[in-house]
Amino acid sequence: MERLPRLYVETSFEECFAGEKAVEDCVVIMDNVEVWLGKGEALPGFIDVERSKFLRREVYDRFYLYVDRVESRMLADAILVLPDGRTRIYLRKGDELLLLPVEGFTKTLIANVGNRVRTGDAFAAVTTRKGEVHYLKPPKSGTVVFIDEITNRPHYVYYILPEE
Amino acid sequence: MERLPRLYVETSFEECFAGEKAVEDCVVIMDNVEVWLGKGEALPGFIDVERSKFLRREVYDRFYLYVDRVESRMLADAILVLPDGRTRIYLRKGDELLLLPVEGFTKTLIANVGNRVRTGDAFAAVTTRKGEVHYLKPPKSGTVVFIDEITNRPHYVYYILPEE
Repeated sequence: MERLPRLYVETSFEECFAGEKAVEDCVVIMDNVEVWLGKGEALPGFIDVERSKFLRREVYDRFYLYVDRVESRMLADAILVLPDGRTRIYLRKGDELLLLPVEGFTKTLIANVGNRVRTGDAFAAVTTRKGEVHYLKPPKSGTVVFIDEITNRPHYVYYILPEE
Repeated sequence: MERLPRLYVETSFEECFAGEKAVEDCVVIMDNVEVWLGKGEALPGFIDVERSKFLRREVYDRFYLYVDRVESRMLADAILVLPDGRTRIYLRKGDELLLLPVEGFTKTLIANVGNRVRTGDAFAAVTTRKGEVHYLKPPKSGTVVFIDEITNRPHYVYYILPEE
């Protein structure tokens, strides 16, 4: 089984820190400065809490809770770290996402989280009861940031960050 | 035409700063702290130069100069920021890359920089003079970090960061 990405979501200072110590893995962003703290690590003295954003580690499967699924927009800033540990995707509150359902008799996922899919590429395929195969392609090119297996059961929903 | 990724490569403090000002866009990494500075911006006072790494903006097409093409390894730390501005790929000195040439009578590039390609996916296709099409697939899954159009002319070389 494939390892999951790590997710960090914007929250309050209090949700990240008790006193000066991080209560969970957190990322602090102050203007052009980023600090990546593990649980138990101390907030550096040069951080001005008033000017900073705090992102706290969250269970990856809960990503969809931070998306307005009616407006298809991010409800908070978030950072995804892909399983290779080398790739980070920065999402901002208000970012528009493409929410693309995969619904059919049988469903085959093709693109994975972190994949960039272009308008000509199929990200998934569905087969009808009659055995017809339909390939699903995105209306805009973008990067797959989440595949929701929960809210549309037994179907799937792809969350794609489109390129401008 | 597609915009190019931005590339930052590790260098010395002196190549990034004249006095306290950045002479070019630079990223400073001190332990778990990252500072992204534009040209002309000042080095923050909390940065200890001795403990820090300095990465300087470099022309993307020169990426291959920072790869040992015999050993297929990175010669320096580097960061790629993909054209969407939201995705960063962190490469470290010593990282092994897959260098995969695309050689043939006609050559079709399929995967682009930032694409994740799996062992079952073709990243390029070549057609022989006799019209036979061969699809090129990587020996390991990974992310395309560079497509060299220069050193192997008139052919191409894909640089892929494999997943462990």
